Amino acid sequence: MTVTPVLARIDQDLPQAIQRLQALLRIPSISTDPAYNDACDDAADWLVEELQSIGADASKRPTPGRPMVVGHLDGDGPEVLFYGHYDVQPVDPLDLWDTPPFEPELQDTPKGKVIRGRGTADDKGQLMTFVEACRNWIAEHGRLPVKVTFFFEGEEESGSPSLIPFLEENADELRKEVALICDTGLFNDKVPAIIASLRGMLGQEIILRGASRDLHSGHYGGAAANPIKVLSHILASLHDESGRVTIPGFYDGVPELSPERRAEWGSLGFDTATFLGDVGLSHPAGEDGFSALEATWARPTCEFNGIRGGYAGDGFKTVLPAEAAAKISFRLVGDQDPYKICAAFQAQVRRLVPPDMEVEFVDHGASKASMMQMEHPLFDKTKAALTEEWGLPATFTAAGGSIPVAGYFQSILGMDSILAGWGKDDDGLHSPNEKYDVESFHKGTRSWARVLGKIAEG
Amino acid sequence: MTVTPVLARIDQDLPQAIQRLQALLRIPSISTDPAYNDACDDAADWLVEELQSIGADASKRPTPGRPMVVGHLDGDGPEVLFYGHYDVQPVDPLDLWDTPPFEPELQDTPKGKVIRGRGTADDKGQLMTFVEACRNWIAEHGRLPVKVTFFFEGEEESGSPSLIPFLEENADELRKEVALICDTGLFNDKVPAIIASLRGMLGQEIILRGASRDLHSGHYGGAAANPIKVLSHILASLHDESGRVTIPGFYDGVPELSPERRAEWGSLGFDTATFLGDVGLSHPAGEDGFSALEATWARPTCEFNGIRGGYAGDGFKTVLPAEAAAKISFRLVGDQDPYKICAAFQAQVRRLVPPDMEVEFVDHGASKASMMQMEHPLFDKTKAALTEEWGLPATFTAAGGSIPVAGYFQSILGMDSILAGWGKDDDGLHSPNEKYDVESFHKGTRSWARVLGKIAEG
Repeated sequence: MTVTPVLARIDQDLPQAIQRLQALLRIPSISTDPAYNDACDDAADWLVEELQSIGADASKRPTPGRPMVVGHLDGDGPEVLFYGHYDVQPVDPLDLWDTPPFEPELQDTPKGKVIRGRGTADDKGQLMTFVEACRNWIAEHGRLPVKVTFFFEGEEESGSPSLIPFLEENADELRKEVALICDTGLFNDKVPAIIASLRGMLGQEIILRGASRDLHSGHYGGAAANPIKVLSHILASLHDESGRVTIPGFYDGVPELSPERRAEWGSLGFDTATFLGDVGLSHPAGEDGFSALEATWARPTCEFNGIRGGYAGDGFKTVLPAEAAAKISFRLVGDQDPYKICAAFQAQVRRLVPPDMEVEFVDHGASKASMMQMEHPLFDKTKAALTEEWGLPATFTAAGGSIPVAGYFQSILGMDSILAGWGKDDDGLHSPNEKYDVESFHKGTRSWARVLGKIAEG
Repeated sequence: MTVTPVLARIDQDLPQAIQRLQALLRIPSISTDPAYNDACDDAADWLVEELQSIGADASKRPTPGRPMVVGHLDGDGPEVLFYGHYDVQPVDPLDLWDTPPFEPELQDTPKGKVIRGRGTADDKGQLMTFVEACRNWIAEHGRLPVKVTFFFEGEEESGSPSLIPFLEENADELRKEVALICDTGLFNDKVPAIIASLRGMLGQEIILRGASRDLHSGHYGGAAANPIKVLSHILASLHDESGRVTIPGFYDGVPELSPERRAEWGSLGFDTATFLGDVGLSHPAGEDGFSALEATWARPTCEFNGIRGGYAGDGFKTVLPAEAAAKISFRLVGDQDPYKICAAFQAQVRRLVPPDMEVEFVDHGASKASMMQMEHPLFDKTKAALTEEWGLPATFTAAGGSIPVAGYFQSILGMDSILAGWGKDDDGLHSPNEKYDVESFHKGTRSWARVLGKIAEG
C-alpha cells in the first residue's frame, strides 16, 4: 500500500470533497447558544452517516450537552485516535459578514480560492481533511494502513463540559497509541507545524448587580452605585502599567523563557509586522519585554472578550444601569493552576465590589497548559510526512490558543497528541467572514494521507 | 370665572381623560431610534387634533428631526407658554417589562391605581394634565382665564437637536410672560415642588477601534491591543477614590454648597433610606462628603450610561474584540461650561488611547445648568395654587435631572420657567414598567386648573 495513488485520488476527488464539506458547513452547529442544539444534533448525525459511508462503525453518543461522535475503522499497523470538533462559534456581529455565515461559497481572492463561512477553518474544514484522507485510502487500497478511531466533539467552543466524564467513561475505547488533532494552523502560512505546547484557559464572567432596576441618571446620578463604573474599575485593576496581570500568584508556575528558546524562536523568521499588519495593527500591546511571538506562545494573558451594561444602542439613554457584565479569558502556560488563579481572581474582584452591589461569577471552563512528550517516534514520522507534502521542513512550535482536549488526553488517557493543522493567519477564526483556503483543505487532506502512510511504515 | 366648577368637571371627566391619554400612549414615539420616526409624526398629529378639538389654533411644525407642535388658545389675562414633550425613551430591555410598553393599562397596586407603560410619566401623562385642565376650563367657562401657547417637542429624549434653531426662528411666537413646564415630580411623593434649579448635561459617546476585525484571543491575546481593556482604563480614570471627577477644570463654576443651603435642604425631611431603598440600595455612592440629596441637587456627576464590546451574549466566545464603546453623561451645576468640559474630557481620553487604536467621539447634547429668577410674581401664585390642591405647602427645590429647554427659554427667549410636575419617585422613568399614578394625573390636572385660575387673578 503506497500513498502515491491515494494522493492522485485526492486531487481528482477535490470538487466532491468540497461539496461534502459545504453540506456540513450549512448546519449552524453553534454550541454556545441553546437555540442551536438541534443543529448540533444534525451535525453529529451527518458525521455519523459520513463515517458509515466509508465503512466505519460509527455512532452518535449522548452526553448531558451536545453529543459526541465516535467511529472505528479497521486497518493494519498501529492504532491512532483522530480528534476534531463539529461545533462552531457564534456569528455575531452578523452585519459584518459579507456573505451569510452558513451558506458557504467558494470565492476567488487575490491569494487564491477560499471557502467562506462559519466553521470553515475552525474546525469543520480541518476535521474533514482527515475524513477525506481516510476515504481515499480506502477507495484506493480497500483498507487503511493504520487502525483509526474518530472522535468528534460538539462542545469545543463552549468549554467542553461533557468531555472529561466522556473520556473517563470511554477510556478503554478511546485510548490509542497517539492522538492526531487537527485544529491548528501552519506557521507563517507556509511551514507545516506540529504544536508542542499549548496555552491553557480559564474563562470567567463577572455579573455586577446594583439597583433593582435601571435608574434615571439625572434623578439618581451621584447617589446610586453604577455597575459600569465598578466593572471598569475592576477590569482596569487586572493589569499593571507594564501589562502584567495583577492577580496575586498569577505568575506561579510560569516558566522562564530561556535565552536559548528565545534565540530558537527568533530564528523561525516570525514576521511580527505582517502578523499584526494583517489585522490593521502595528504595535505589540502585551507585556513589556516580550515579542509578539513570545507573548502569544510563552506568556499568560488576561483578555476581556465581551462587556455589556446599560443602553448601548443607537442614540442615547440617560440610564443608570442596574447591571453590567464582562467575559474574561485567561490564557495559561507552564504549570499555572487554573483553579488557584480562579480563586485569586474572584477574591480580587470581590474586594472591589462596593456595598449595595452583588457580584455573580459564571464559569466558562478551566484547563491547564499542555506540553507534549515529543520523544514518541510518531512525532518524527509526522514531521517527515508534512515536510514531504509542503516542501518546507516542518517545525515544532507552540500555540497561543488553548486546545484543552490535548491536556485531557494526557491526564485522563495517558496519551500524547500530535497537533497538526492547515489554517492560515488570516482565516478569521471566531470572526466575521471566516474562511479556509482551498489549498489548506486540499494539501491538508494530502498531508493526512501521507501521515497515515508514514505511520504505517512502522 | 372661578375654578371650583372646573375642578368638579375634571373629577367627572377623569375616565375619559384617561382614555385620551391611553390613545396617546399607544403611539410608540421613541425619538432616539429612526425606526420610530413615523410614530413620532403620528404622536404630533394626534396632539394637533387634540388641541384643535379644544379650540386651539394648532399645527405640526416640521424640523430637520421630529416635528414640533404649536397651538394657541385665546383667553383673558397674561400670556403663558406651556411646554411638554411627546417623545419617549426606548423600551429595552423589553424582557423586563411585565406588560407591553405601548399597551397602557390601568392597574391596581398597593399604593393605588396606576397607568402602566412607556411615557406615562415621562412625559405624555404630565403633558396631558395641562391639556385636560384647559379642556375643562373651556368646557365650563367657554374660554381660558389666561392666553396659552402650547409647545410640544418630539426630541427631548434624544438631545433636542432641533430645539435651538426652532426657538430662534419662532422667538416672537413663543416668547410669553413665563413658561410652564410639566416634566418633573413631587417632592418625596407628596409635597408639590417647583424646581428652582436644574442640572445641565453633557452627553458623550466614546468608540474605540483597534484591530480591523475581531480576533481569536488565543492567537492574538498578549500581542494585539484590546479595546475593552483600554476603555475600562479610560472609564476608571474619570473618578478618583473619593468619587470626584478627575477631568482638569471640571469643578470650575461649581458653587460651594453654603451651610445655610445645606441646613435648609436638611430641613426638608428628605428620606435617603427610602429614596435608595425603593430601588434596592442603601449606600449613597457618589462624592464623599455629600448627602444623596446634595449629590443629586447641587453636585456635578459623571455617569456611565451604557457600554458594549466583544461578545456579551449567552455562553462564551474567546474573541479579542475590534471595537468597544461607552456612553457617558455629565450632569452639570452652577456655571460649569459644557463645551470646556467636553474638550477637557476628550483630551483626557485621547491621552489614554494607545498606538494602534483610534477613538471616535459622538456628541449627545450639551446644556448648562439653569437657575430660575423666582422674584417673578407668577412663581408665588403657582406655589399658592399647588399648596391649595395638595394640602401641603409647596416648596422650591432643585432637581438632579436636566431639562435643557428651561435653559434655552432663558438664553434664547429671555423667559423664565415654572417647573412643576406630579411624578413620583417610583415612576420608573427611562426604566421598564414605567408608570404614572392616577392620582398624579388627576390631581395634576386639578393643579394646572388652579394655577391658571390663580395666574388670572392678576
